[in-house]
Amino acid sequence: MMLSEFHPPHRLLLGPGPSPVEDRVLRAMIAPVLGHLDPVFLSCMNDVQHLLRYVFETQNRVTFPVSGTGSAGMEAALVNLLEPDEDVIIGIHGFFGERMYEMATRLGARPIRVEAEWGRPLDERQIRAALERSRARIVCVVHAETSTGVWQPLEPIARLVAEREGILIVDAVTSLGGHPVGVDRLGIGVCYSGSQKALSCPPGLAPITFSEAALEKVRRRKTPVPSWYLDVSLIERYWGSERSYHHTAPINMNYALREALRIVAEEGLESRWQRHERNARALWAGLEAMGLQLFVPREYRLWTLTTIRVPEGADDARVRARLLDEFNIEIGGGLGPLRGKIWRVGLMGAGSTRRNVLLFLSALESALRREGIRCGSGIAAALDVYEA
Amino acid sequence: MMLSEFHPPHRLLLGPGPSPVEDRVLRAMIAPVLGHLDPVFLSCMNDVQHLLRYVFETQNRVTFPVSGTGSAGMEAALVNLLEPDEDVIIGIHGFFGERMYEMATRLGARPIRVEAEWGRPLDERQIRAALERSRARIVCVVHAETSTGVWQPLEPIARLVAEREGILIVDAVTSLGGHPVGVDRLGIGVCYSGSQKALSCPPGLAPITFSEAALEKVRRRKTPVPSWYLDVSLIERYWGSERSYHHTAPINMNYALREALRIVAEEGLESRWQRHERNARALWAGLEAMGLQLFVPREYRLWTLTTIRVPEGADDARVRARLLDEFNIEIGGGLGPLRGKIWRVGLMGAGSTRRNVLLFLSALESALRREGIRCGSGIAAALDVYEA
Repeated sequence: MMLSEFHPPHRLLLGPGPSPVEDRVLRAMIAPVLGHLDPVFLSCMNDVQHLLRYVFETQNRVTFPVSGTGSAGMEAALVNLLEPDEDVIIGIHGFFGERMYEMATRLGARPIRVEAEWGRPLDERQIRAALERSRARIVCVVHAETSTGVWQPLEPIARLVAEREGILIVDAVTSLGGHPVGVDRLGIGVCYSGSQKALSCPPGLAPITFSEAALEKVRRRKTPVPSWYLDVSLIERYWGSERSYHHTAPINMNYALREALRIVAEEGLESRWQRHERNARALWAGLEAMGLQLFVPREYRLWTLTTIRVPEGADDARVRARLLDEFNIEIGGGLGPLRGKIWRVGLMGAGSTRRNVLLFLSALESALRREGIRCGSGIAAALDVYEA
Repeated sequence: MMLSEFHPPHRLLLGPGPSPVEDRVLRAMIAPVLGHLDPVFLSCMNDVQHLLRYVFETQNRVTFPVSGTGSAGMEAALVNLLEPDEDVIIGIHGFFGERMYEMATRLGARPIRVEAEWGRPLDERQIRAALERSRARIVCVVHAETSTGVWQPLEPIARLVAEREGILIVDAVTSLGGHPVGVDRLGIGVCYSGSQKALSCPPGLAPITFSEAALEKVRRRKTPVPSWYLDVSLIERYWGSERSYHHTAPINMNYALREALRIVAEEGLESRWQRHERNARALWAGLEAMGLQLFVPREYRLWTLTTIRVPEGADDARVRARLLDEFNIEIGGGLGPLRGKIWRVGLMGAGSTRRNVLLFLSALESALRREGIRCGSGIAAALDVYEA
């Protein structure tokens, strides 16, 4: 079997990620391949680290992209920080909190569940209680639950962890670059993200940053880090001043990330957050004007990802297929218990534009009409937000 | 600090990898990004798996690219197959055998070292002895030792492992696509590689294949696989017919791999192996005519990677810097105990051409002359090989 060239269609990526990638990022990715120890590539690495510190809002020396996707970032955080039989508090209010729990279990730690209903944030009082009744020093929370669209306030939890001189691990996969994360301001111990969400880079890298306190905990481990590939003590010798070979970095993906981060820096973090907020608010207004129910209460909604209850009488999969086939628009369905119950609409990075909000509202109106649901237009309500 | 665009120079990559990448592979990489569950991307995944089975010479159902670089492939093999306190035989005749040993140790297995001098292959009689005196069922060997340039004959070891109904794990990072590997023919249990060697794709993916016997061992584990990210039982549900979400695949890297594999299929494996052999032999003849000493005896030399003893009177780092600065040619230095003692010259994938052999021989002659070493030309001897 001889295969022909691959020519994928131009999708508008309005799902939970990957997000739209600007042409200049793709062009940067096809610059000539360099060796991973080439001095010119080492300067590219320096640039990537410099820019990542900016988006993480940190001075952390050990800040770099893990050579894998977002879940590799999660695993890198846990595999370095957790030791067997160690108590660890895991906030679970969605699919990705469950994933952290699963990883911690596999690593032989003793994860303590602090749960909230899917679609609601964690209550810090429960975390306080868990801290008081356990020996846990580490607390893991998901800042932006990609499965539910919930934005988790970090400040109260960060304060609790700081009082106990603990270490806070934050999953910022769907928030970094779209919401303030504030690694240094909040004293976060380890924070990781993915390249393919609000940073608008293709998937394949997981930015991560470790505080000195987190590194100190790694250095005091009684057992070796079980993963050689993700051992931060080894990786930092390649990304740090030693530059000693660890593994071959994904060269071209790093070119792409450098360019994607340059775009973030040009726009400025504050402007970028505001853009994400404004477009999200317009989308919410439009959807609500259409009579649709949003899954998350307003004060806990992500700007990067909006979740909508599938309305009575609409077929989840058919609506998504129609958006894909007729409009080349990708949105996400629900995960786990939310399968068939919600849609996940991402306005991330380059995807967070007024144009996309209006197009999506129109396309959804069309798709729902084909389901026999005449819900009216959301355009005017969205425009009102922009003109306010 | 605002950073400008990044414009790396066009290096000729004749080191131990990454290898030169054809323009059509880079162009394929910048096709529009798709979602990881988009039906069009799922068809791309099918193509990649189909083509990987061809290059691995296997019918193995579970054949896919790990979302990480070659060392992630190594870790994926070991983390799935090894259990704590399990005896495992590891052949060590270079840096990458040592890496396997290190990974196995971290996983809590009991690795048994079977060693050979760096620059020589393993002796299968030692593996037989280790099998006889231990309870090990798993034997790990490096087919192409990237640190030494040694080609390890696999047949005798594969026979030993088969007699014992064991499982052979083969590191084919620097051989796949340049040498026959023959996964099914040899009954290899797990074989992994990297995208950036003889497959001539940018780094970032690690092709891997699991036999049914290997999967059966994974299914019978008493303990969970400690890595969630690399757990083959989870990954195969995404790459298999279930298509259930595991992690976001590096979409554009998969486009690139598909195109790189298409090039392999167009050339045909046999022709590709012959090309690698012919160019390597011409290089060897040229180097020997220059009076240089090759590090590995002829019968155990890799076609993909040639190792040269740094001649008396030459400064290792200065010669490599000169090749890089004056000729834009990258070659590798020695690793670990071979640091400063050998050069590693790769002729891999698109890099294995007559043009590159002649250019490299000339450039090396020039660089050595600047060191005060007049070694004569290797061109005539190389041409003799081509004209034989």
